[in-house]
Amino acid sequence: GKESDNKYLSELRSKLQIEPITPHIDALSKFSSSEDELKGVTRLVYSKEDLEARAYVKNLMKKNGLKVREDAMGSIFGRLEGVEKSQKGGGHVVGSGSHTDAIPLSGKYDGVYGVLGAIEALGALKRAKFQPRRHLEAVMFNSEEPSRFGMACSGSRAMGGVLDAEKLETLPDVLNASTSFFDAATQAGYGSKWRGEKNERARTAKEMVEQCSLMPMDSHYYSFVELHIEQGPELEHENLDIGVVTAIAAPAALEITFEGDGGHAGAQLMHLRNDAVVAGSKLAVAVEEFAKHSGSVDTVATVGGFTVKPNAINSVPRSAVLEIDVRDIDLKRRDLVVEQIISTANKVASEQRVRVNVRMINKDDPATSGDSAMSAAELAASHLGHTQKRMVSRAYHDTLFIAKACSNVGMIFIPCFKGYSHRPDEHSTEDQMRKGVETLALTMAKLSRE
Amino acid sequence: GKESDNKYLSELRSKLQIEPITPHIDALSKFSSSEDELKGVTRLVYSKEDLEARAYVKNLMKKNGLKVREDAMGSIFGRLEGVEKSQKGGGHVVGSGSHTDAIPLSGKYDGVYGVLGAIEALGALKRAKFQPRRHLEAVMFNSEEPSRFGMACSGSRAMGGVLDAEKLETLPDVLNASTSFFDAATQAGYGSKWRGEKNERARTAKEMVEQCSLMPMDSHYYSFVELHIEQGPELEHENLDIGVVTAIAAPAALEITFEGDGGHAGAQLMHLRNDAVVAGSKLAVAVEEFAKHSGSVDTVATVGGFTVKPNAINSVPRSAVLEIDVRDIDLKRRDLVVEQIISTANKVASEQRVRVNVRMINKDDPATSGDSAMSAAELAASHLGHTQKRMVSRAYHDTLFIAKACSNVGMIFIPCFKGYSHRPDEHSTEDQMRKGVETLALTMAKLSRE
Ligand SMILES: [Mn+2]
Ligand SMILES: [Mn+2]
Ligand SMILES: [Mn+2]
Ligand SMILES: [Mn+2]
Repeated sequence: GKESDNKYLSELRSKLQIEPITPHIDALSKFSSSEDELKGVTRLVYSKEDLEARAYVKNLMKKNGLKVREDAMGSIFGRLEGVEKSQKGGGHVVGSGSHTDAIPLSGKYDGVYGVLGAIEALGALKRAKFQPRRHLEAVMFNSEEPSRFGMACSGSRAMGGVLDAEKLETLPDVLNASTSFFDAATQAGYGSKWRGEKNERARTAKEMVEQCSLMPMDSHYYSFVELHIEQGPELEHENLDIGVVTAIAAPAALEITFEGDGGHAGAQLMHLRNDAVVAGSKLAVAVEEFAKHSGSVDTVATVGGFTVKPNAINSVPRSAVLEIDVRDIDLKRRDLVVEQIISTANKVASEQRVRVNVRMINKDDPATSGDSAMSAAELAASHLGHTQKRMVSRAYHDTLFIAKACSNVGMIFIPCFKGYSHRPDEHSTEDQMRKGVETLALTMAKLSRE
Repeated sequence: GKESDNKYLSELRSKLQIEPITPHIDALSKFSSSEDELKGVTRLVYSKEDLEARAYVKNLMKKNGLKVREDAMGSIFGRLEGVEKSQKGGGHVVGSGSHTDAIPLSGKYDGVYGVLGAIEALGALKRAKFQPRRHLEAVMFNSEEPSRFGMACSGSRAMGGVLDAEKLETLPDVLNASTSFFDAATQAGYGSKWRGEKNERARTAKEMVEQCSLMPMDSHYYSFVELHIEQGPELEHENLDIGVVTAIAAPAALEITFEGDGGHAGAQLMHLRNDAVVAGSKLAVAVEEFAKHSGSVDTVATVGGFTVKPNAINSVPRSAVLEIDVRDIDLKRRDLVVEQIISTANKVASEQRVRVNVRMINKDDPATSGDSAMSAAELAASHLGHTQKRMVSRAYHDTLFIAKACSNVGMIFIPCFKGYSHRPDEHSTEDQMRKGVETLALTMAKLSRE
């Protein structure tokens, strides 16, 4: 009940001692392939630096008394055992985690804070002699960033049962033209080299991906809450300690190609043209309008890529390739905008007498946070006396895909300097980080016991 | 009078014997820096291949009994002396010519046909014992194509008194980062190495350009008529032998840059954006509209270049650079479109809250053909029994700039295969070329004598 919640949470709060996070943030930042440290961290999945970071994480998990296991793709789990070893018909683990891989020349906190924070939260709970009912897990997801293979959140997609192993194997490796994902995983000690606790194996990419699955829904995690820097300016701007995330926006990405006949800019008369830039431009203007008129500020649509050929001043454009990103926290609303864009592309193509090709690059479902995950985080922050608000996550995270395997996910944000991320001056203070970790600790304690 | 015109033209026609042009077209095509001959001709101004072509041309001029001189930039003149050595207050030379330089991987006929055709026309007139009154000159212009220094028609611009020597010297050489135009001209034997017939010199770029000037208007050429392949499909399509050009369209080129703040495509809400692609797109749509509604089919406007940064699907565009080409045969009408475009760029920038920069890259005046030049060509074609029509030249040629120094210019077009040009399969037949050359010969004869 609420009264007993308050009692044990207050007791727990008085016993929690959060160790500094910054030393570990700095230590991990050294495992980087950037030529110039000052220019930021680079750590691609399965690279030498990534393996060094993994070793550090596993060691830290052990130091904090967590039992370590790894899945076939390389996601790492540090468990604080609960008394209730299994729960009939439902998830018996409460998880929290993030990623340590880093896009080229980026910051030290993105993802790393959530991995270190989860480990420290569990370590602090253990030191406070907290006995979980459901197991608690700190997780380092295999890779969240798409830098090496073009696939973001590879590990969590597999856990959510939405990773196509065949497609995974076709993705080119930017580090090595002849390596497939499965090859790279195997070279790193996962893939076909991986052995499960019961000596299970993953001999193919398909088996590897299947091994990682946490499906069906709610069979493993009762709840999953990711701790992350906001990557936006709101919390800092409003002087708040904690953001309780209500929903995670997800992108739909399309590539739309218009093709005309081209021609000499001086010689081709206007009424004979089928100019690809004019077609692309008409669509780009419409894309902005559709997003602006969706009925919600949470809908965003961007023509981020607009590539023209031959792109010469004296040539009527022969082709224009538009790369369009549409995001929202509401699936139906987002997909309505996608439909409007496709429909307009066809209409414009007809009017301008160009050929059009629409290619859906990617389409992920947004996720809504679970009520009990959100309530637990809000209660935790209150108990700690931290200021908070509910907010949307406009970037996506591994939790978006965990939501496919768990109906009770959430995220906890902390402020970061000017909202900067994916750049070397990304920063959150020790104090800001501590507040996030202790909020996570109490949140997980509540979720473990409810 | 008309009757005596007809008499001597008929006599001349019966005596004219045009030698085959194709062997010389083929010979010149061998002077090329293209790696693969099948991929087309490449011949940049002042290059080794260009010097070889010049030697061939000078030799051919001499073989045809023409007196050769070169100006300080390297335009080459082969003269058939007239009896009237000078004309009070007016031009005493009738010229015809074109260029032999070739953009990378292009055809064998563009420009080359006009140079060879002019030499052959004069040679045939000489062999027919035609005595010109005004001098006749076959001209090879220094360079018409902009491939090496980014400056088209360098020689004829100097002749027309519209070449800025200071600007010329700032242009980068694509072949050699440290060479200026004057350096390259000098290395080729022109520039400071050039000696005039009276031992004049050109010690600086400024002197070089001044030496080439044919100003003031009508002080040198009484008329100038350039022979050229159509580079369009009309004559072939309508089964006509000869096009008599009424006007040459000229381009105005602008570079318009829109700049916004950029941002993360997922995180930046629509009402806070200043997206450079949306701004550029609104302008591109307007550019087409302005050209279409100018009141004439001869107005064309093209956003040929549309370059976006960072051009990544998950980034709100930070900048969009548009390169716009506007052409017309009517100066006022064309410049009205240019004004509309600039005005709209500023309006769009204000609406979209982006910064805008407008840079005029280039602006040349269109030219109208001289009445007597056109009549002479039409009369010549009639006499020869060739089918003809009046038409516009939508690409520009050296004659556009000669029009600054001569008020009686013209052009004669012949059909070319499917209108193809600037590509290796560019082609006109020996028969088509012969008809053009004999038309030019009778045209020049008439202009020389009237
Ligand atoms: Mn990231
Ligand atoms: Mn992240
Ligand atoms: Mn050309
Ligand atoms: Mn030409």
